[in-house]
Amino acid sequence: MAKNDLRRAALADAGIAVLAREGSRGLTHRAVDEIAGVPVGTASNYFRTREALITGLFERIGQRLAPTADDLALRAPRAPDPSLFADYLRDIVRRLLTEREVTLALFELRLEAARRPELAELLGAWQRAGFEADVAFHTAAGLPGDRREIALFHYAISGLVLDRLTSSIDPTAPTDEVVDTLVEGLLPRS
Amino acid sequence: MAKNDLRRAALADAGIAVLAREGSRGLTHRAVDEIAGVPVGTASNYFRTREALITGLFERIGQRLAPTADDLALRAPRAPDPSLFADYLRDIVRRLLTEREVTLALFELRLEAARRPELAELLGAWQRAGFEADVAFHTAAGLPGDRREIALFHYAISGLVLDRLTSSIDPTAPTDEVVDTLVEGLLPRS
Repeated sequence: MAKNDLRRAALADAGIAVLAREGSRGLTHRAVDEIAGVPVGTASNYFRTREALITGLFERIGQRLAPTADDLALRAPRAPDPSLFADYLRDIVRRLLTEREVTLALFELRLEAARRPELAELLGAWQRAGFEADVAFHTAAGLPGDRREIALFHYAISGLVLDRLTSSIDPTAPTDEVVDTLVEGLLPRS
Repeated sequence: MAKNDLRRAALADAGIAVLAREGSRGLTHRAVDEIAGVPVGTASNYFRTREALITGLFERIGQRLAPTADDLALRAPRAPDPSLFADYLRDIVRRLLTEREVTLALFELRLEAARRPELAELLGAWQRAGFEADVAFHTAAGLPGDRREIALFHYAISGLVLDRLTSSIDPTAPTDEVVDTLVEGLLPRS
């Protein structure tokens, strides 16, 4: 990445940390400067408004939650079937849990979207693009299940990850087994 | 309810509104007094600490999300089968969506629990008691499915409701149909 892009990504990472640690009301340009350890005014230079800052954050969230090279290498040469799909879901859940602050930041933004329709519009458009890409990938791979099942996977995984990262109803149940039960239940046999 | 209990419930309702409208960082005794329209110091009289206030809030959240008399009357005399279970889930989802501020307040508390282990302990104990009661009810009613499926229903419904109350990936899909797909998939046929 060019130097400017690196700085922009570092500021967005700082913003993600602010959201996770302070909640959405703590997200100000000054708090970002502070956590990033840069001179006051730096975040404002890169993201002129709070809206621009938030857009920068969820672009960065998308990058940090994208499959790693390892994820892709492991999964590439297999036939598309429910067990491949279960592996994908396990990867996603693992990334969401490992990137704890990123996932919490996204939940914070979603709750702020409930209070601010203009953010709901921005964030909703970004989430829907991701969802449509999932549906297209799923169909192209010849995996069983349609958009209704895929939406349900999104809901269940979002609830599972929220459970594991906050207060849990069932903290000792192995997360991978939950994912398996989900795939067995929701994915029609091909 | 006695006059004191009524005042306590009204203050808790004000706290729920503060959480939903301002996020968890906005939750102070003074903000509760203000939204409740009572003299400064009233909330502190009823809830000495922020911890006591939060405990009061999730007790009140439980009351406001409990089945209504109508819900119970409609469902009482039927045989326990997947269609009864689907009706229960539809009732729960409807209450969670209708009581929008209550549900958002609960999400806010859960995210705060990710930042504060002592709140995670309190809230987690309360959620686990609710979950164990669901498992016991489910078993007593002779409904198919065990605690793993019931946990998955919790996750899926929590993700679905978050989707519907914040920014949605699939805003036009009828919520009842999503619940039906969930029951068909996750509830083993008896």
